[in-house]
Amino acid sequence: MARWAPGTRERLRAAAMELFEERGFTATTVPDIVERAGLTKRTFFRYFSDKREVFFGDDEIPAIATRMLAEAPLDVPPLDVVLVGLRTLAQQRFEPRRSAIRAARRVIDAEPALRERDLRKQADLREAVRAGFVLRGEDPLTAVVLAGVTVELFEAALGQWLADDSDTPLAEHLDAATQRIRSVVGDGGTETGVSRPRSAWPTRRSGRRAASP
Amino acid sequence: MARWAPGTRERLRAAAMELFEERGFTATTVPDIVERAGLTKRTFFRYFSDKREVFFGDDEIPAIATRMLAEAPLDVPPLDVVLVGLRTLAQQRFEPRRSAIRAARRVIDAEPALRERDLRKQADLREAVRAGFVLRGEDPLTAVVLAGVTVELFEAALGQWLADDSDTPLAEHLDAATQRIRSVVGDGGTETGVSRPRSAWPTRRSGRRAASP
Repeated sequence: MARWAPGTRERLRAAAMELFEERGFTATTVPDIVERAGLTKRTFFRYFSDKREVFFGDDEIPAIATRMLAEAPLDVPPLDVVLVGLRTLAQQRFEPRRSAIRAARRVIDAEPALRERDLRKQADLREAVRAGFVLRGEDPLTAVVLAGVTVELFEAALGQWLADDSDTPLAEHLDAATQRIRSVVGDGGTETGVSRPRSAWPTRRSGRRAASP
Repeated sequence: MARWAPGTRERLRAAAMELFEERGFTATTVPDIVERAGLTKRTFFRYFSDKREVFFGDDEIPAIATRMLAEAPLDVPPLDVVLVGLRTLAQQRFEPRRSAIRAARRVIDAEPALRERDLRKQADLREAVRAGFVLRGEDPLTAVVLAGVTVELFEAALGQWLADDSDTPLAEHLDAATQRIRSVVGDGGTETGVSRPRSAWPTRRSGRRAASP
């Protein structure tokens, strides 16, 4: 019983998650949670400021991103900084907690207030990545685009990973999402010449493309 | 649908926006707004369900996206569908209202509850685009990546356009953001071999992979 630090947090989280799944988020109270966990309200509030926080214990992620961006050598290409960072996050913070994250996601998806909070978390990460790339010397547009790509890659990979019943690691879903975003933005008709939009439909004129890899 | 008295809606919106800028969002009431506009509360509630809605009158955007995705011929490459759609939205719904949108953005940025609502709007658009691409026959990962790219391109372009004091149209900012996302995702060292992360920097650690399938 001595090791109350990580164990207690996880016990509270597990009890809360069980109840959220059984009764729904709204119907579950903090007293219910501590009763199920066999702990006191005081203990609960030492770890979480309210029951929404049970889902969002990983709010350190933007701070981690800031640190990773500051520590990566300046000659590492920006997308590698992103991919190495996401892969590290995946392995250290997500991979070991897949079933807990999956349960949390079900509750979040069913509860609009939690969905908004989840979106704010994504926005906080986006902002941390943007600011980090500005500090690395990227121009404002590049920084904002990199931040957007970071969040979308991670969310896409996370969604696939949580939906996937095989044991494919999150890092592999990240690789797949990265390949997909490359082919999607490189693949406009402009690049492949598959076909041009019909003239009846408002077409996009002029084949612009960036230097290809 | 857009036939009913755009004048009244705009009058209410303009009055609200003036007050939000003068007094802040929280301190402004619906009675204040209708007084400033010289209209009645009843009229206000015919157009907006509450004062937050003043900012989010363009909630039809996800429905517009759904329609555009359904109407674009199936042989149009996905990224062209996205770019034509965003360009059309930009020209029809954003370009004519730049100063109003800029004022609204200042109020939104200062008010956390409005920022969360704005994020939810983006999420609704993302979901509409994802679902639209699934209906067009894209696989789930491609659809989600396309949806993410759509939202990030539009948000990046919008941010640049609102910050830009020249008269550069939003559509040009969209082109710039598109070029940028292409160069950013195409440029990763991993594909181009430009450079590998130094070994001193936490590279993809091999040791940690979960069992692969």
